[in-house]
Amino acid sequence: MSGDKIVLALDGMGGDHAPDVVVAGADIARERYPGTTFLLFGDQARLTPLVDKRKGLASVLEIVPAEDAVLADDKPSFALRRRRKSSMWLAVEAAAQGRADTVVSAGNTGAFLAISMVAMRMLEGAHRPALASLLPTARGETVMLDLGANLDCDADNLAEFAVMGSVFAQVLLGLDRPKVGLLNVGSEELKGHEELRQAAAMLRLEGSPVDFHGFVEGNDIGAGTTDVVVADGFTGNVALKTIEGTAKLYTQFVRDAFRTSTFAKIGYLFASGAWVKLSKRVDPRRRNGAVFLGLDGVCVKSHGGTDELGFAYAIGVAVDLVRYEYKSKLIEGLGKLQQVRSAEAPATSALQASGGAA
Amino acid sequence: MSGDKIVLALDGMGGDHAPDVVVAGADIARERYPGTTFLLFGDQARLTPLVDKRKGLASVLEIVPAEDAVLADDKPSFALRRRRKSSMWLAVEAAAQGRADTVVSAGNTGAFLAISMVAMRMLEGAHRPALASLLPTARGETVMLDLGANLDCDADNLAEFAVMGSVFAQVLLGLDRPKVGLLNVGSEELKGHEELRQAAAMLRLEGSPVDFHGFVEGNDIGAGTTDVVVADGFTGNVALKTIEGTAKLYTQFVRDAFRTSTFAKIGYLFASGAWVKLSKRVDPRRRNGAVFLGLDGVCVKSHGGTDELGFAYAIGVAVDLVRYEYKSKLIEGLGKLQQVRSAEAPATSALQASGGAA
Repeated sequence: MSGDKIVLALDGMGGDHAPDVVVAGADIARERYPGTTFLLFGDQARLTPLVDKRKGLASVLEIVPAEDAVLADDKPSFALRRRRKSSMWLAVEAAAQGRADTVVSAGNTGAFLAISMVAMRMLEGAHRPALASLLPTARGETVMLDLGANLDCDADNLAEFAVMGSVFAQVLLGLDRPKVGLLNVGSEELKGHEELRQAAAMLRLEGSPVDFHGFVEGNDIGAGTTDVVVADGFTGNVALKTIEGTAKLYTQFVRDAFRTSTFAKIGYLFASGAWVKLSKRVDPRRRNGAVFLGLDGVCVKSHGGTDELGFAYAIGVAVDLVRYEYKSKLIEGLGKLQQVRSAEAPATSALQASGGAA
Repeated sequence: MSGDKIVLALDGMGGDHAPDVVVAGADIARERYPGTTFLLFGDQARLTPLVDKRKGLASVLEIVPAEDAVLADDKPSFALRRRRKSSMWLAVEAAAQGRADTVVSAGNTGAFLAISMVAMRMLEGAHRPALASLLPTARGETVMLDLGANLDCDADNLAEFAVMGSVFAQVLLGLDRPKVGLLNVGSEELKGHEELRQAAAMLRLEGSPVDFHGFVEGNDIGAGTTDVVVADGFTGNVALKTIEGTAKLYTQFVRDAFRTSTFAKIGYLFASGAWVKLSKRVDPRRRNGAVFLGLDGVCVKSHGGTDELGFAYAIGVAVDLVRYEYKSKLIEGLGKLQQVRSAEAPATSALQASGGAA
């Protein structure tokens, strides 16, 4: 179903402002990505008037009735067992069975991951999926993964995540050979976890499909030292939320400072253009669309609270992944990793046995 | 040697700007903390003129000659074996042997920790030291630990860190019963590491010396949800450096925004008071002084690149820890933790065996 025309499966009922934001986002994306068509899953009675209100949308969009929906607080296991007729399940299934090229949902992250893992298989050479997203940096943008799909990762998982992140950066950031870093602690005396050192040794092997920069530290994320930052899902999730919290704190600090005096308030007014520029630069909507990498399918998770502009960005991520052939590039990269790993297997094993010395 | 008069051992040769900043910092602290006296370890020929230049300092400060110094890039193992006559070793030894109440160094962190661990013992009930510091939050300040002393921590370590952080917050922030959180990932489907759930179960036991809030996420650090945030040293170090990197990035974003137009530049000038207020609020010097908690001694690590004001703040942390009897409070807290742990041992073991269900 790939080719010129891209078919997107949309979970019409997922997200805080569904289905309105989903339909409005699809309408924006329709203009941005000509040739794209949509399968919109959900409550037909609610979706039909929303679609009909938007001129031209109905001609590229087909509503597929789904009688149930995954709720925000459904446990993944519950969603797996009990929500087989939900808009999310049916949308994922459409992508898994080839009726769509990709699926986008703003719904429950855990349920979306669990359903995707069951409905789709893992790609050859990928053992675990990783959740990846773009983050703003001093130099532009950096891909970070895993943001929470797997709390415990071994060296093989981390090396595979490095390949996934590299391909993601190629496709989304248009880089030929993205620099990849492994998130670690940098102090001399504190050696990183064993699995980090083993993963680094794999990525440094001759013929590795990744341009491996080495270890990076927490401050390198914002500095943009590498194009990709790889971590296990626990560390990546803590880092992501720490970034969000710190950004919020500093925004508050700046606002507070400008409320302290009349002079500051006048300065604030003069600088209104600067604020607009600043908020554009840090606008999370422009980086909306986290991806489950490693699955035999393209699954994009929109932030649950986003608006139609944010949802349209998430659709854009899905379109780019399909259009620039993320899947075939990833299969190739994972294949190369397996090759260099098995070619060097005796050496690597010896290294692991001796405690690693990357 | 405690009591009204506090004796501080200072590593005169540690830090990027030693010995000047150490002497100047001691001079500021001398005025701030009357009754404090100093043992200043280092190169006598270099220290003497610096001390003599400052009126009144010589009367409360004794220079103790040290013929060697730990270098910034010394490995901890090297410093342990080969720097026994360094200013750092001798300063730590003075505190370990009771000739001083506390030791402050701006030198090599790893070496300082290693030397302190060898020269001092652990407190009864503390199995590993943790590096703790204050961080700015929306509500004021939060204690965070471990910032990198121990990469891998078990449930006992984490529960002990919770007690250490709680006592640290009592002494430094003047709180009666600080709220303590364990850093984890929050998504429903992603259960935290086993050791986190076990530590949480311990801290929830009847009679626990800690006001345990439960799990917190990365964004709760900046929000100030709890007064203390506890993590293993790997996660804590990544979070700390991620905060630093994000703060730097946002400062750059704000600066860039104000350079975009003439109006913005005028606004910047009007708002100069706001900038001063803002930079004061985030000034890392005002939070200088990380502490190795859990040792039978009070060891304060100043940032290596700080100026005299920052070094004086680190001295202030040391003074507060001694004055408000951090050590005896910590011994008491750790004792209580041991008590409730052993009283509930059968129940806890059963809980652990069943996989934990905190």
